[in-house]
Amino acid sequence: MPDRINRQWTLARRPQGVVGAEDFRLVEGPVPAPADGEVLVRNLLLSCDPTQRGWMAADTYLPAVRIGEVMRSIAGGVVVESRHPGFRPGQLVTGMFGWQDWAIARPGTASAPGPVPPGVPLETALSIMGLTGITAYFGLLEVGRPQPGETVVVSGAAGATGSAVGQLARIKGCRVIGIAGGPEKCRLLTEELGFDAAIDYRSEDVAARLAALCPKGIDVFFDNVGGEILDAALARLAMRGRVVLCGAISRYSDDRPAPGPSNYLNLLTRRGRMEGFIVIDYLPRAAEAVGALAGWLREGKLKDRIDVQEGFERAPAALARLFTGQNRGKQLVKIADPPPGLGGRS
Amino acid sequence: MPDRINRQWTLARRPQGVVGAEDFRLVEGPVPAPADGEVLVRNLLLSCDPTQRGWMAADTYLPAVRIGEVMRSIAGGVVVESRHPGFRPGQLVTGMFGWQDWAIARPGTASAPGPVPPGVPLETALSIMGLTGITAYFGLLEVGRPQPGETVVVSGAAGATGSAVGQLARIKGCRVIGIAGGPEKCRLLTEELGFDAAIDYRSEDVAARLAALCPKGIDVFFDNVGGEILDAALARLAMRGRVVLCGAISRYSDDRPAPGPSNYLNLLTRRGRMEGFIVIDYLPRAAEAVGALAGWLREGKLKDRIDVQEGFERAPAALARLFTGQNRGKQLVKIADPPPGLGGRS
Repeated sequence: MPDRINRQWTLARRPQGVVGAEDFRLVEGPVPAPADGEVLVRNLLLSCDPTQRGWMAADTYLPAVRIGEVMRSIAGGVVVESRHPGFRPGQLVTGMFGWQDWAIARPGTASAPGPVPPGVPLETALSIMGLTGITAYFGLLEVGRPQPGETVVVSGAAGATGSAVGQLARIKGCRVIGIAGGPEKCRLLTEELGFDAAIDYRSEDVAARLAALCPKGIDVFFDNVGGEILDAALARLAMRGRVVLCGAISRYSDDRPAPGPSNYLNLLTRRGRMEGFIVIDYLPRAAEAVGALAGWLREGKLKDRIDVQEGFERAPAALARLFTGQNRGKQLVKIADPPPGLGGRS
Repeated sequence: MPDRINRQWTLARRPQGVVGAEDFRLVEGPVPAPADGEVLVRNLLLSCDPTQRGWMAADTYLPAVRIGEVMRSIAGGVVVESRHPGFRPGQLVTGMFGWQDWAIARPGTASAPGPVPPGVPLETALSIMGLTGITAYFGLLEVGRPQPGETVVVSGAAGATGSAVGQLARIKGCRVIGIAGGPEKCRLLTEELGFDAAIDYRSEDVAARLAALCPKGIDVFFDNVGGEILDAALARLAMRGRVVLCGAISRYSDDRPAPGPSNYLNLLTRRGRMEGFIVIDYLPRAAEAVGALAGWLREGKLKDRIDVQEGFERAPAALARLFTGQNRGKQLVKIADPPPGLGGRS
């Protein structure tokens, strides 16, 4: 009865360099029982997100995961037992359920379960209609504020957030250039996702290509990467250009602080703005984003790119794929099928 | 008749390191004659501004000064001959008149003369009621947007712009900390200009002092300096903190690009904003700033710190004082008294 055992990946140590299996410990325990007001969730899919590297390392916008604690993660699953009137067995939910088979979810806390909208696959609820899509929506539209006809450049463009940002910028009437690693990812951007152009940072001179592709400069640079790519984008910033800081995956595996963007002074001469955001600040407005994203999905203007790895034991390796550039779109880990008799309908 | 000779400092070469006399050439020529629609100005005071180093080096927000061209500079003087109905001999004016004894000023062009308001000394029209004060006003209030009770930190605080910014932040009800070099400048800030505290970056650990003085973080950092001081301020940025990029005097003398601020990612975790501006964008609204600044000057809430060097030949050395930290407040060079019979009244 493997389902009566709760496998958990706990944090074994603060990571050094790229995350790996040695940073986690696999433990087993009993399946927990929900108290009044709680629900018991069988996790089916784990979400892998670059920000998890930060949660492992230090206190930032959330406290660091403690050593020995279950690894913090967004996940999706099915309600198996409910002691809360708002949830029923068989219902699909997402939330901060952690890297474990079974989770106790309590509405009103950090582990609150979020209902998956009717008809939406759990994968989609964890990607473009989940925090990934909401991040792209508010980061691009509220922080970047692109105008029709402007040039938008996205780094990490074949990743979950980047691929959504590029498609949203196209929907808003912008010219969109994606930066990604390798010819296959670049083809994905231009041939499947509608980007106007793609730059392969592994084989091309990013600065030279940006100069050629953005003769009037970059109006919005949506940065998931940091490092030299951010510097190259700052070098081409248009007057009143905006840099949206969403992440810096090239730096997360550094053990010492790396130099910042040497070209930041172009923000001065070109009256630019560089601004960071954290998606949790926008959660009170999540319905606005989810509604818009659902509409564009239905209309076929937006595609959800999902990359599923199979097996609970592969969670650490799946997370590492983000940092070695192996994922294509949203990285998920499938850890189980819905339990018998619980269809997993939203 | 020395007044019938026009001494000019022309640009001899692109500067390397700190600016110096070897970057300029002193030449003499005849006094020019104004054409229709022009006025002839006898320069009395030259303005020294850090941005002039940039104008000497490369095209930025203005084209670089050409080799052999008169050094670009704001200056103040008296109209000696007018062939424009808006100006009369004896009137005080300021404008981009350059490092020379005599200048042709033409309304509607880059050399346009600006009338000095009645009763305002020429020194003041070149400092706190000129571009310096206007820079401080719009940079702090429009870009930084300080709220009463917030903590504002200013680098280069004993300089022309910095000393004005700190006083304006106090007027707006903020707690103000200045960063400057040396105990004398620090005393100037706290004892004469009303700063709440000062940090001597030459003898103190700026990061540690900022941590002690800003327990709730920095809400607005107004940066004139860049480099390590910017990094230290980013390390202490408050949630939704703003970094106003006004200048980076620590970097202007670098011949190669220096690393950028390593802590820029705090803009992300703390939802911060770093934004640059150039005062010329705000010139259409200059009257708003000058009116407000004049009022605070009259009320004694604002003090104008001026540092005058004497003699046309000292212009290059006076400019260099900005980069070696010798100036106290606005650096001006007095090159002449008003010509006989022209009192120099505004």
